[in-house]
Amino acid sequence: MSETTHHEMWERLNLDLEAHDGLLEVLGKFYGDIYLSQDNRLKGMEYLDFVLSEVHGLRIKELQEAKEAGRKVVGTFCVFVPEEITLAADAIHVGLCAGAEAGSDLAEQLVPRNTCALIKSFIGFKMAKLCPYIESTDMIVGETTCDGKKKAYEAFNEIAPTYVMEVPQTKTESARALWRSEVVRYIKALEELTGVTITAEKLAEGIRITNAKRKALQRLTALRAASPAPISGRDSLLINQISFYDDPVRFTAKINELCDELQERIGQGKGVAPADTPRLLLSGCPMAVPNWKLPFVVESSGAVIVGEESCIGTRNSRDLVDESANTLEGMIDAITDRYMKIDCACFTPNNERLENVTALAKSLKADGVIHYSLLFCQPYSHESLKVDKALQNAGIPMLSIETDYSMEDVAQLKTRVEAFVETLG
Amino acid sequence: MSETTHHEMWERLNLDLEAHDGLLEVLGKFYGDIYLSQDNRLKGMEYLDFVLSEVHGLRIKELQEAKEAGRKVVGTFCVFVPEEITLAADAIHVGLCAGAEAGSDLAEQLVPRNTCALIKSFIGFKMAKLCPYIESTDMIVGETTCDGKKKAYEAFNEIAPTYVMEVPQTKTESARALWRSEVVRYIKALEELTGVTITAEKLAEGIRITNAKRKALQRLTALRAASPAPISGRDSLLINQISFYDDPVRFTAKINELCDELQERIGQGKGVAPADTPRLLLSGCPMAVPNWKLPFVVESSGAVIVGEESCIGTRNSRDLVDESANTLEGMIDAITDRYMKIDCACFTPNNERLENVTALAKSLKADGVIHYSLLFCQPYSHESLKVDKALQNAGIPMLSIETDYSMEDVAQLKTRVEAFVETLG
Repeated sequence: MSETTHHEMWERLNLDLEAHDGLLEVLGKFYGDIYLSQDNRLKGMEYLDFVLSEVHGLRIKELQEAKEAGRKVVGTFCVFVPEEITLAADAIHVGLCAGAEAGSDLAEQLVPRNTCALIKSFIGFKMAKLCPYIESTDMIVGETTCDGKKKAYEAFNEIAPTYVMEVPQTKTESARALWRSEVVRYIKALEELTGVTITAEKLAEGIRITNAKRKALQRLTALRAASPAPISGRDSLLINQISFYDDPVRFTAKINELCDELQERIGQGKGVAPADTPRLLLSGCPMAVPNWKLPFVVESSGAVIVGEESCIGTRNSRDLVDESANTLEGMIDAITDRYMKIDCACFTPNNERLENVTALAKSLKADGVIHYSLLFCQPYSHESLKVDKALQNAGIPMLSIETDYSMEDVAQLKTRVEAFVETLG
Repeated sequence: MSETTHHEMWERLNLDLEAHDGLLEVLGKFYGDIYLSQDNRLKGMEYLDFVLSEVHGLRIKELQEAKEAGRKVVGTFCVFVPEEITLAADAIHVGLCAGAEAGSDLAEQLVPRNTCALIKSFIGFKMAKLCPYIESTDMIVGETTCDGKKKAYEAFNEIAPTYVMEVPQTKTESARALWRSEVVRYIKALEELTGVTITAEKLAEGIRITNAKRKALQRLTALRAASPAPISGRDSLLINQISFYDDPVRFTAKINELCDELQERIGQGKGVAPADTPRLLLSGCPMAVPNWKLPFVVESSGAVIVGEESCIGTRNSRDLVDESANTLEGMIDAITDRYMKIDCACFTPNNERLENVTALAKSLKADGVIHYSLLFCQPYSHESLKVDKALQNAGIPMLSIETDYSMEDVAQLKTRVEAFVETLG
């Protein structure tokens, strides 16, 4: 990471420079060990390596330049915040830091100890002054997808004003009406923030850009059905992670180029691991940058990851917004319907997810599934039991992992994953 | 408890007779130690002692007789299920067993280990065949008030079909519209269950009965402001607990009688503890029968409890349904509005609760507050931090307790409570 060239900017953003340098150093080493050590990487990954190396540098510089040019930056924690609308208001939509243990001890002043690592992380990043994204935002958008986040935003709001969208908990008509009203409220909030009037034309363009990004990610997902696996799970996860930070148009073009390269490689029968390597699907909680612990453990245990059934994965890319509407109201309906399709564990019941996980495992020819729950994430912990049953019925073995961001359990995880992989051989 | 006379009925209800006898024996002993050992109890408590001693006996017999006469029994876990509507359909509204550790090991087959004791308890009671209420129900109603219950009902539904009401997470107009539609849906579900058409007249009667019960409980709350404290916290908690099981009309009459006795006692300057005994308000999670652990610890530590800010307490009795409407639609609005006033931690923000706790502590002349969170209850654990701040600002000291249903931490809790009580002296 380019920790020497961006210090002035970070200082202006009021980061804790010394601690931030330390964080980047650790991350750089971690990235070297987990990513750069891989064999047979795609040439297209050079772009991702570069973006990641400048994720706190050049990308933040871009945001600052856009802000100077009058654009606004919206920071989010969840795939329920409609990027289409943010783009329609000519604003920039980015994810916020939530994937490392930075500042988690400080976070415990605001939230209970029994709070998941992701929540403690975003609060800790803010309190420890380590996230240049949050310091670049003009608006932070939370949502009510779990008790932990819902209640944490109340405390977070005191140190970082947070606009909260109410995501309903069922998929009834009344729940859809509530969500539609939240979509409309978000449009108004964005118009107020940016001074831009969101017209049908602008919203259609936002939908088009966001759908194009999703289509590129869908293409990547589909190509991973090939055997031998043409790309590592780590690299695919990184692509999904970067999709939350990078400029969407540039990112889409780069991922389509990478998919061209993947297609070529598949045509040549090449891959990142021998064809008989056990293929695993990861399923469950999102893995935010730089939460690469479990993928690294899995791919160091004789298996290859062929998919990520998570919000930083297929849950974010599977469904497109219908582009046939040409009025603003029609587009709002289309956006409402697309987001109501998300198979988040916040919904009850959420049987679509059981069907989707099973179908994805089959289409990706996965030999098994590793279900990943963050410790204290109640929605996904509960669903892990149901996913396990659904997969058992489909004859697909599953290993349930519950962990956090600490490195203390790596050896123990490796033992469990290796034992699981052995049973698939 | 009358474990010898009701065996035939329990056998018909398919209870595990041996385990159930064991449970009643433990409870009887527990009740003797915690309740019957108290000095200066009100004469009116004899009724409560009797009801509690027959809570699995005569009251279940009443339910069975009502069922034979064609009435239906609705079982609930939460104060959001509108009792007014249940009564309007000539059905019986009861709480279900959720306050003891029975069957919790079995429950872990259906829900994660990191689930709160209350949830594990209701699942465990069902799996271990120990709750005659659930075996008497014609309809079980859950609700989406927390991730734990919301997701647990999905698993529970497989062993005990559960109708789930969606409680919204904010108090916006759209959220109110969602809740109103759920109230209407509940009316239709009850009409279908019972064959009774819920008319304005019937609903007005349901509202009147439920309001009368709340008014009796409000009267009890208000009388506890007296010094010396005229009734123990244990006895008051029991009254609130029994309010979920007993026939509402009979219960209301008995509690009003008890309040008359309380008034007389207050007039004579009598109480259950000397006037200089530190007065504590309990605040937080509900304590379902027979969860008397913390009240017993507190009142064995030189303090007296003067209020319960919880769902089995003031959260259930504080707000009345406006009785001025005379059309069905108007009553549905009044019911909707009354339930939207509940200051449950499921709402974000929930600042009303901070105001209500502070006001209640002041009106009851509490010297301090003990905030009680069930382990893994995220909504109340998060709010404990905010309640602490609000009380600090009001100059009221607070002790935060997090525990479950096990008895292992009693000595440790006692040490903490005694130390807190000493600081109030």
